[in-house]
Amino acid sequence: MPSLRDLVLRNRSYRRFDESHRISHQELVDLVRLARCTASATNRQPLKYFLSADPETNDRIFPCLFWAAFLQDWKGPAPGERPAAYIVVLIDETLTKDWWCDDGIALQTMLLGAVEKGLGGCMIGAIDKDRLRRELAIPEHLKIRLVLALGKPAEKVVLEDLKPGGDTRYWRDEEGVHHVPKRGIAELIISAGK
Amino acid sequence: MPSLRDLVLRNRSYRRFDESHRISHQELVDLVRLARCTASATNRQPLKYFLSADPETNDRIFPCLFWAAFLQDWKGPAPGERPAAYIVVLIDETLTKDWWCDDGIALQTMLLGAVEKGLGGCMIGAIDKDRLRRELAIPEHLKIRLVLALGKPAEKVVLEDLKPGGDTRYWRDEEGVHHVPKRGIAELIISAGK
Repeated sequence: MPSLRDLVLRNRSYRRFDESHRISHQELVDLVRLARCTASATNRQPLKYFLSADPETNDRIFPCLFWAAFLQDWKGPAPGERPAAYIVVLIDETLTKDWWCDDGIALQTMLLGAVEKGLGGCMIGAIDKDRLRRELAIPEHLKIRLVLALGKPAEKVVLEDLKPGGDTRYWRDEEGVHHVPKRGIAELIISAGK
Repeated sequence: MPSLRDLVLRNRSYRRFDESHRISHQELVDLVRLARCTASATNRQPLKYFLSADPETNDRIFPCLFWAAFLQDWKGPAPGERPAAYIVVLIDETLTKDWWCDDGIALQTMLLGAVEKGLGGCMIGAIDKDRLRRELAIPEHLKIRLVLALGKPAEKVVLEDLKPGGDTRYWRDEEGVHHVPKRGIAELIISAGK
């Protein structure tokens, strides 16, 4: 088994996939089973999940998503490199309207689980929510929060050290490698070490 | 190395610790190094961290925290079973006021990292923020979001299957075992399986 650090480093935000590698419904259920066992603010557990692993439903979800704000010349993955599955993360507002950070906890856990299976994905927050709700017949009491796009990654993503004040925008080079600048550790920690 | 599922299951919300087991400043830095490599909405990376592993600073943080809303007769861990370290998670509002779910992503990653080291902890959102800001001299532009309390766990926490409509409140039995009811998988998935 890989160390958590290996999983975290392999867990990049992938936006291009080998679409011929299918993901089963059961694999998605297994990821939700992981998320089910995570912490929830005041244990309210308001998250619900819409799973899609079949091409027809995937085709209804894909046009509702906006990809990679900083890659302005790129309209998202082409046919053949699109996600093989999606998990739409919903908040059941009949249970609470304050989900605190349950969404991030669950999403990161599911993504790490996907990476452990040799998959990868991207959390997408830029969504045409009205259209997605219609396409999937999602009931009104379930707030659409994020979509997790999943597949077998088919791109290289590298982290770079960002200097203080530098530009955080990710970019793609001429060879298609995706570069993600990350702030240095000294910029993140505000306390003196003891 | 344990599987991710093992880590997720061992990663319970622990509120009582063996306080004699110290945590080093470097161990906390290592956890932030993990969080540094996680996804951030539009890659803005607004999270900052105040680390405390020394008893004197811990003693200033502890009285600012409210423990376990559902255990009304319990005022929090007694001396000797308190956290050995804290990571205060802050949002740098000069970078963005919309951190999306970066907090949950980072916190879950750090907690899984702690579990891998044989530690454990609890994300605490109920905080006397004004007092904590004064105690730690946290600048005004850093919003206090959550405190991660860490230590070597000294309590048993078990998950239980919750029936639909059941009570989500956690509870502690006469032997001090902490019980956490979790919704069943069928309640979480709203799509038909294919």
